[in-house]
Amino acid sequence: MTNIKGIGASSGIALAKAYKLEMPDLTVSRDTVEDTEAEIKKLNEHKAAVEKEINKIKERASKNLSAEEAAVFDAHLMMLNDPEFASQIEGKIKDEKLNAAAALEDVATMMINMFSSMDDAYFKERAADIKDVSTRWKAHLLGKKLPDPTAIEEEVIIIANDLTPSDTSQLDKNLVKGFATNIGGRTSHSAILARSMEIPAVVATNAVMQEVNDGDFVIIDGDAGDVIVNPDEATIKEYEAKKADYEAYKAELKKLVNAESKSTDGHKVLLVANIGSPKDLEAVKANGAEGVGLFRTEFLYMENDDLPTEEQQFEVYKEVLENVDGPVVVRTLDIGGDKKLPSLPLPEEMNPFLGVRAIRLCLQRPDIFRVQLRALLRASVYGDLHIMFPMIATLDEFRQAKAILLEEKEKLINEGVKVSDHIEVGIMVEIPASAVLADQFAKEVDFFSIGTNDLIQYTFAADRMSSTINYLYQPFNPAILRLVRGVIEASHKEGKWTGMCGEMAGEAKAAPILLGLGLDEFSMSATSVLAQRKRINSLSYEESKALANKCADTCRTMDDVVKIIKDETGIE
Amino acid sequence: MTNIKGIGASSGIALAKAYKLEMPDLTVSRDTVEDTEAEIKKLNEHKAAVEKEINKIKERASKNLSAEEAAVFDAHLMMLNDPEFASQIEGKIKDEKLNAAAALEDVATMMINMFSSMDDAYFKERAADIKDVSTRWKAHLLGKKLPDPTAIEEEVIIIANDLTPSDTSQLDKNLVKGFATNIGGRTSHSAILARSMEIPAVVATNAVMQEVNDGDFVIIDGDAGDVIVNPDEATIKEYEAKKADYEAYKAELKKLVNAESKSTDGHKVLLVANIGSPKDLEAVKANGAEGVGLFRTEFLYMENDDLPTEEQQFEVYKEVLENVDGPVVVRTLDIGGDKKLPSLPLPEEMNPFLGVRAIRLCLQRPDIFRVQLRALLRASVYGDLHIMFPMIATLDEFRQAKAILLEEKEKLINEGVKVSDHIEVGIMVEIPASAVLADQFAKEVDFFSIGTNDLIQYTFAADRMSSTINYLYQPFNPAILRLVRGVIEASHKEGKWTGMCGEMAGEAKAAPILLGLGLDEFSMSATSVLAQRKRINSLSYEESKALANKCADTCRTMDDVVKIIKDETGIE
Repeated sequence: MTNIKGIGASSGIALAKAYKLEMPDLTVSRDTVEDTEAEIKKLNEHKAAVEKEINKIKERASKNLSAEEAAVFDAHLMMLNDPEFASQIEGKIKDEKLNAAAALEDVATMMINMFSSMDDAYFKERAADIKDVSTRWKAHLLGKKLPDPTAIEEEVIIIANDLTPSDTSQLDKNLVKGFATNIGGRTSHSAILARSMEIPAVVATNAVMQEVNDGDFVIIDGDAGDVIVNPDEATIKEYEAKKADYEAYKAELKKLVNAESKSTDGHKVLLVANIGSPKDLEAVKANGAEGVGLFRTEFLYMENDDLPTEEQQFEVYKEVLENVDGPVVVRTLDIGGDKKLPSLPLPEEMNPFLGVRAIRLCLQRPDIFRVQLRALLRASVYGDLHIMFPMIATLDEFRQAKAILLEEKEKLINEGVKVSDHIEVGIMVEIPASAVLADQFAKEVDFFSIGTNDLIQYTFAADRMSSTINYLYQPFNPAILRLVRGVIEASHKEGKWTGMCGEMAGEAKAAPILLGLGLDEFSMSATSVLAQRKRINSLSYEESKALANKCADTCRTMDDVVKIIKDETGIE
Repeated sequence: MTNIKGIGASSGIALAKAYKLEMPDLTVSRDTVEDTEAEIKKLNEHKAAVEKEINKIKERASKNLSAEEAAVFDAHLMMLNDPEFASQIEGKIKDEKLNAAAALEDVATMMINMFSSMDDAYFKERAADIKDVSTRWKAHLLGKKLPDPTAIEEEVIIIANDLTPSDTSQLDKNLVKGFATNIGGRTSHSAILARSMEIPAVVATNAVMQEVNDGDFVIIDGDAGDVIVNPDEATIKEYEAKKADYEAYKAELKKLVNAESKSTDGHKVLLVANIGSPKDLEAVKANGAEGVGLFRTEFLYMENDDLPTEEQQFEVYKEVLENVDGPVVVRTLDIGGDKKLPSLPLPEEMNPFLGVRAIRLCLQRPDIFRVQLRALLRASVYGDLHIMFPMIATLDEFRQAKAILLEEKEKLINEGVKVSDHIEVGIMVEIPASAVLADQFAKEVDFFSIGTNDLIQYTFAADRMSSTINYLYQPFNPAILRLVRGVIEASHKEGKWTGMCGEMAGEAKAAPILLGLGLDEFSMSATSVLAQRKRINSLSYEESKALANKCADTCRTMDDVVKIIKDETGIE
């Protein structure tokens, strides 16, 4: 029995056999072959086997992936059967009397370098395809077996160095009970995926690949960050009990799917979900979210090499609005900063987080902005649309953005298009300037949604991606509580409402504080909704109000606040 | 008569002959020489002439420059007489039968490339020396004349593409009456220099180098941003009158050198100066500053390839404290962000302005921090020392920094060193978090100094160096006025005081606002002190208070604030 310590990245307990995703050694030797015809024949025989294998993976993957995602395998097949690719390899075998694996490697490397160096997203993807296909072909020629997540046919815990998006796209979500990886962190791709799949995960162990063998029995504790390899009977019993407790708790939560979010003394709030695309709508429903508090529209822009058309956007907004029974807050394009678009190259900036991002970019590029606004306006009749502008620092910016929206609305109406008359237009409060001036903003906007991730970053002037100063990411610092309180009070004074769509809204400790500060709408990952509802439904609004004000008014540091919350509510 | 429009970068009117700083064409042809001995002789004859010329420049420059600054010419002489340099050029002439200018250029280029590529500040400077010397030598060989600012013997207006630090170090400040440049901006080196020399300057004309000939008569209006070439008599008269008015105004100001800074209804404030090194002390006195509100200590760290020792720092702090009749606020090391040190290479950051800067770096490197604190503590007995920590975001950071200071103080006292008992310890308020929590900070710090440049940058989440979003640099946005008011009120409630050391403190429009908000100490460029004193001494404190509160409480945008200030005080 071995205990390995990592970072708990997704809650829960799993017990299953280990399945290692490990790349075999594919080092190729360079040999001289006399019988080049035989070598070419060997190359083509393996090609046929590779083709069969890709088709099999594609078939299995199609159960878990959308048609669009599965299309990557068609690209692989096309590349494998590209006559130019094959003839270059054959030429090398013939002319240089080179063995097939080395010839394949040479040609693939040359083509990958060529495509990668092109300044075009399409060709860069082709480079990735060639890499994938040639690796598989090479493995066949060398008689090595590549890890094949689609071949998993029993319940397993995946052990890997890290999980890439392409690995995870092939996983059967019914059979994978958990992950443990050597590298990564709480916000790495594999951690986020584990949380959205609601399976336990432990990352950053630095040891599982070395310590765990394929087929070992493994326990994962995704809260404590523990990986236990080949546990004894007593330990298995202990963790089976823990797992049962956790599942009972989850079942308890599931009962709240259709419940209201209401404090013990009857104060109601709205618990809604953040989504990134229509694919997330299933989780919204499954977790009882009362609407969508943040629809990030960037995926529309990131997925394609061209900017999305009005029609493409309209279809997506319509789909979301039709499928959500409650308000839908759509954030307009928030690109720039660390988010780049293949279709819209932007100049490099010295401090991208303090640069031409979000609404700043949209006001500089109204051509792009207007397309999105028209699509939203047209979709508005299909649900309860709220339009939210990100990164608003001044009322001038809000007025400019709203004026463009109203222009497009008038144009559409003149074109005979139906547009809802009940669209609320609000702003993200994520820049200190707008939080400080919220009373003036509240006279002109319909609602606020506090984006804590950025608001905290700017309020402390500390890059939230920088590991050396992450001690300054302080959601519970009294300075943040005061800004949040000021925004909420300002909105209520004008009869408006305030939501929150940063990570803080879903945190356990934040439940009594935000409830107490009077927050109207909490938007978070769908998978956090039920746990937060359970907490809120167990709290008194009046007591939370006293607690929150005490923290905001008398505390000097984040530690002071955290201590009071724990002392008074037991939540930590 | 030609009118050229640029950006006014330094106030005042100048009328004088144009002196163009223009680099001649130094293109070298590559010729084959038969008589290589004669060519080497020519090379060395010109070398002697270059040596004479450098000595002459050095002699003239020594009138305007410190010994340290003049030492650059010794480095040039050393390089010129380096036997290795000469023998390589001679070798090339002999072996390749190359003409002297081309041989010189080849060797110089090779050495410049070699030195530049070394990752060491010392060698990079040597590359600059070789460039300077070889350019001069080449000009001699080609029979061309380099511009020589030290040869100016009458009053002139300098016309240039831009002015580099090395150009300006050679200027006789008594003869140069103004600058006009093709490029640059209000914060470029030449603009800053013009303001510190108190001579008018117009930058970013895009035209003076093309339109102005050497010896043309030129008028510069450093407020309007006008350059008038070969004006007619009436224009000359008009501008002579303007110049006389401006000089009368300046003379009026000079009368305020020993005056108090006091509103018409008797409210006193302190007008103090920002300094970067002891060299600036002369201007502090000449402009009647009542102390130093910000001593930036970075120059100590930037000038040398090694970190400054405790002794070196002590001497500088002592010199400043002994020569200032009033409080001296010393800011501890503010490095990182856009400021890098040759002696302390830091990792690249994605968003340096949101990174490991100032106190964050000092708390990570207490070894460096303690040296500075010890030097300051030892110097404290020579004047009225205030120690100020920059970039404080949380009380935890302040407590850590102060604890280190107290440890060093105790150590020094145990070593028998005298340390003042009246050192005030405060913080820069330049991060929104500390402004919002000022009431709690005020219980632990002795004073605040608001750093508006950074506070504005972070409050609007907009890089102040980025030209595309400089519309978000809004000192008069009501959000900033509220933060400033909150800090001042918080300090007064605890019997502490608040200063301001950002550019805003010296702005005309800021005088009624900051006076009205109750600011105790205004720190600015020494050359702004008298004009700001004149304004403050003409304002009513009670009226300014009403004005400032009206702006902070009722305005929605910066334009609203600017309009009210203009309407009520006439200041714009």
